[in-house]
Amino acid sequence: MVVWDEEGFQGRRHEFTAECPSVLELGFETVRSLKVLSGAWVGFEHAGFQGQQSVLERGEYPAWDAWSGNTAYPAERLTSFRPVACANHRDSRLTIFEQENFLGRKGELNDDYPSLQAMGWDSTEVGSFHVQSGAWVCSQFPGYRGFQYVLESDHHSGDYKHFREWGSHAHTFQVQSVRRIQQ
Amino acid sequence: MVVWDEEGFQGRRHEFTAECPSVLELGFETVRSLKVLSGAWVGFEHAGFQGQQSVLERGEYPAWDAWSGNTAYPAERLTSFRPVACANHRDSRLTIFEQENFLGRKGELNDDYPSLQAMGWDSTEVGSFHVQSGAWVCSQFPGYRGFQYVLESDHHSGDYKHFREWGSHAHTFQVQSVRRIQQ
Repeated sequence: MVVWDEEGFQGRRHEFTAECPSVLELGFETVRSLKVLSGAWVGFEHAGFQGQQSVLERGEYPAWDAWSGNTAYPAERLTSFRPVACANHRDSRLTIFEQENFLGRKGELNDDYPSLQAMGWDSTEVGSFHVQSGAWVCSQFPGYRGFQYVLESDHHSGDYKHFREWGSHAHTFQVQSVRRIQQ
Repeated sequence: MVVWDEEGFQGRRHEFTAECPSVLELGFETVRSLKVLSGAWVGFEHAGFQGQQSVLERGEYPAWDAWSGNTAYPAERLTSFRPVACANHRDSRLTIFEQENFLGRKGELNDDYPSLQAMGWDSTEVGSFHVQSGAWVCSQFPGYRGFQYVLESDHHSGDYKHFREWGSHAHTFQVQSVRRIQQ
């Protein structure tokens, strides 16, 4: 992926093929536009892969509003990012559990669900996840809006037993949409 | 669906099973929270189904940021809405065309694509659409961010030949993600 320090793909430019723990070390104050040329990536608000997450799939992001889907807490800054190595649009499987620690009722997913309730999930929350294959992003509200959390089969053995493990910015079990990450 | 005039499902309440051309006529200034109990709906910023569109699938939307995925132009107001009758998660087919009026190269879709480029589409734009079945939402940026446009097989015979036909707020051919609407 390629990042620029000004909107509209202007200004200083830097290309990455691997993770970047902090754009500040390149002399960037923040990323202001970017293009994903191949693969799937996740961007983080802060250095060291901390803060709000934004999934970055192939395409062009001319300004911060292109990667920030969270209107209440816009992720204007993008300071670190890394590839999502295991993303696989065709073979992705996720199990969702009603309660933390993989307890309670469960659901097996291999498709995208902009509304878990429409699929038959009886709650606006998910307690824990197990990612069997591929990579997924789950979101707070239907239609993939609000806070996003990236879940990968090759991180923590695919186990995410409490929202504390979904991301440093996670503060609630509220998840209403889930989808595969496309590479 | 049910709407409230205060956030968090408080205040005055009204339930709908059919379209509402203007909540103002109910004495609401705007909708501030809502729940979709069944079906799929599209909400509009202004009365008479005009202005920015927000797809509303089953679930709970406690405040405006839950339905507004557009961080640069947040759709805080929701003034009219109607059901998306033909939404069908399992049987949805869409053809995208490089140019307006169904000209140029084309792509046949029956799945969700958070990145059209990752699927092999060589552009950040789409010229025109033909919806063969189901209902779709296309978005300006990857990952379903930015402006949204709802496309239905039972509207205009599924034909959308120029961005002028995608919605009253559409002003560009830029479309980088497309997905089925789930009911």
